[in-house]
Amino acid sequence: MTDCIFCKIAQGSIPADKVYEDEQVVAFRDLNPQAPVHVLLIPRKHIATLNDITDEDSALIGRLQWVATHLARQEGIAEDGYRTVMNCNADGGQSVYHLHMHLLGGRQMEWPPG
Amino acid sequence: MTDCIFCKIAQGSIPADKVYEDEQVVAFRDLNPQAPVHVLLIPRKHIATLNDITDEDSALIGRLQWVATHLARQEGIAEDGYRTVMNCNADGGQSVYHLHMHLLGGRQMEWPPG
Repeated sequence: MTDCIFCKIAQGSIPADKVYEDEQVVAFRDLNPQAPVHVLLIPRKHIATLNDITDEDSALIGRLQWVATHLARQEGIAEDGYRTVMNCNADGGQSVYHLHMHLLGGRQMEWPPG
Repeated sequence: MTDCIFCKIAQGSIPADKVYEDEQVVAFRDLNPQAPVHVLLIPRKHIATLNDITDEDSALIGRLQWVATHLARQEGIAEDGYRTVMNCNADGGQSVYHLHMHLLGGRQMEWPPG
């Protein structure tokens, strides 16, 4: 996607504070962090929203969650705890229309979740 | 797990307002809803926390997300939008130690997510 900021970050044409990348997934720190640790995880594949995932993509979404857990360990928040969040469309608060997962931790997360 | 309330709900020995079940996943309404739609999705397999998922389990987590999207459509919130949340350990706000995903929608979700 030519105009997608997250595709550009994945490709490296826009800089970001990356903390992880592999063939399928890229992770980088959120520019407006809502917790001491706030990382965004994206698939390299452009998928606009959760509504657009196919049965085939579900393994990729599982992979995002698996990498989030790996990063929680890397960031030292795995044992104290963390929250993962995915937003879909306006009511969900989705801001960038390239599917992404938020990993938040390093503080007590509150309830409700927004 | 003998003493796990979510295992008992999955098995049917504790009642719950189920909205979906298949061989791997069970979904039911949260008893303390934080939005007009608030559904919990659990794997039938007892996995305590996100820290305990193996590479093998990641497909199952992807399946949870896929079912959440299906339920968002079923509940009529897919287009307006929704949020999915997973909490791990105390800082994440995890209350029941059988891994679960929250699906929330039917209102504008706020930021930060708790």
